[in-house]
Amino acid sequence: MKIVLIGAGNVATQMGRALVAAGHQVVQVYSRTMSSAAVLADRLHCDATDNTGTVDKTADLYIFSVKDDVLPALARQLAPGREGGVFVHTAGSVEMGVFEGLVPHFGVIYPMQTFSKARDVDFEEIPVFLEASDGQTRQLLETFAATFSKNVIAMDSAGRRQLHLAAVFACNFVNHCYALSAEILERNGLSFDVMQPLVEETARKVRFMRPAEAQTGPAVRYDKTVINRQSALLADDRQMRAIYELMSESIHRLALEKQNRHDKL
Amino acid sequence: MKIVLIGAGNVATQMGRALVAAGHQVVQVYSRTMSSAAVLADRLHCDATDNTGTVDKTADLYIFSVKDDVLPALARQLAPGREGGVFVHTAGSVEMGVFEGLVPHFGVIYPMQTFSKARDVDFEEIPVFLEASDGQTRQLLETFAATFSKNVIAMDSAGRRQLHLAAVFACNFVNHCYALSAEILERNGLSFDVMQPLVEETARKVRFMRPAEAQTGPAVRYDKTVINRQSALLADDRQMRAIYELMSESIHRLALEKQNRHDKL
Repeated sequence: MKIVLIGAGNVATQMGRALVAAGHQVVQVYSRTMSSAAVLADRLHCDATDNTGTVDKTADLYIFSVKDDVLPALARQLAPGREGGVFVHTAGSVEMGVFEGLVPHFGVIYPMQTFSKARDVDFEEIPVFLEASDGQTRQLLETFAATFSKNVIAMDSAGRRQLHLAAVFACNFVNHCYALSAEILERNGLSFDVMQPLVEETARKVRFMRPAEAQTGPAVRYDKTVINRQSALLADDRQMRAIYELMSESIHRLALEKQNRHDKL
Repeated sequence: MKIVLIGAGNVATQMGRALVAAGHQVVQVYSRTMSSAAVLADRLHCDATDNTGTVDKTADLYIFSVKDDVLPALARQLAPGREGGVFVHTAGSVEMGVFEGLVPHFGVIYPMQTFSKARDVDFEEIPVFLEASDGQTRQLLETFAATFSKNVIAMDSAGRRQLHLAAVFACNFVNHCYALSAEILERNGLSFDVMQPLVEETARKVRFMRPAEAQTGPAVRYDKTVINRQSALLADDRQMRAIYELMSESIHRLALEKQNRHDKL
């Protein structure tokens, strides 16, 4: 497949790497910022441009990995003259319909993973969610996605939106909890490294038990003494304290709901 | 070492396993609930009791792993006649001083990990934080802890309290984010299994970059369109929506602070 990447951020970078590794021909990277385009193009050994007018017109596939806000206008701008290619985006929360009426064949390839430019990930294990405008495009995208992922799943825009929301909780909010934990440790002269065994066990554990069953700590035991004492330690940080209290309350509520369901059985 | 376990919950269960595996002699398990004491005692091939009067008086070490609220009274009750043994507890947020005046030698062994009865963990990799009432006890506890962990660290009660708070963020709140993610998926007929590659990569990633640098997602990009749309998807769940908004705001705030610090350099 002859591919143009629209965007040069975290997703485009890791996707580009995986595509080249799978033997595809990434011919060009477009980014609004020339330096970003150049860095990724250099890594993929292809052309870079920051001018929509010079984006290649002969590609089989245009993969949009840009901020959700700019996607509609950029797609509209690039469509004329590129109707021979399939347009896809990689966003969790953008409907496939964003391409409707612009090009005849379009779809979505949503790789559900956290991507950073500096951290190479193994695409093989990543669940990739597909949507396509028509049967022919579906077949093409399925064959394409299977070249870099073992885990390709059909999913419409409504389902993908829920998946993305669930991923925000399981990844983005989780990482923020790590960041707040690191802040507490750093204030006390400790390194976050000490948390790594706990962090990795917490993640592995939910392979073997449902998250609600894996819950431990003062909030699920409803150990009011500890909860009040810990909350008081955060007296100087209004927002962190609010998170502490809201999360503790929510953990307790979920545990009670689980108990009630169990008692009813 | 001849050891009595006071408590038969998650920590006592996993600690007991590790101690027996390290060749120590766990002679008895006490729990307020006889059935809990019996299950763990059976697993460790030792005696069980739910009567404080019959707790063995000849042990070298009494390890208290009970709810923080009941620890002071239980320690007071068990001290008379057991002054020859070292009293330790395993709690993150309880001061070592809880044993002061009860027995001559005491301390804390805090294994920083998430423990569930049903999930056996490798103690070797767990950071274990030690505190002791005196030099002799410190030496004894250091030698003891080294038999089951490669990562023994001295830490006073004030430091341990901060560590425990940091662990609540990095583990308990993280797991709750998994639980909320699972709830969203289940409402939509999807299994949490699909999240596992994302969950594990999110945890592994912070080995290689600081959590604040590893942050991805709509909140750190401040993608208002996605944030508003995702928040609206949670309209029927007041508490989950509050968590969504508070976490998104906090992620954004932390990113801005990081940016400001960077700009000042």
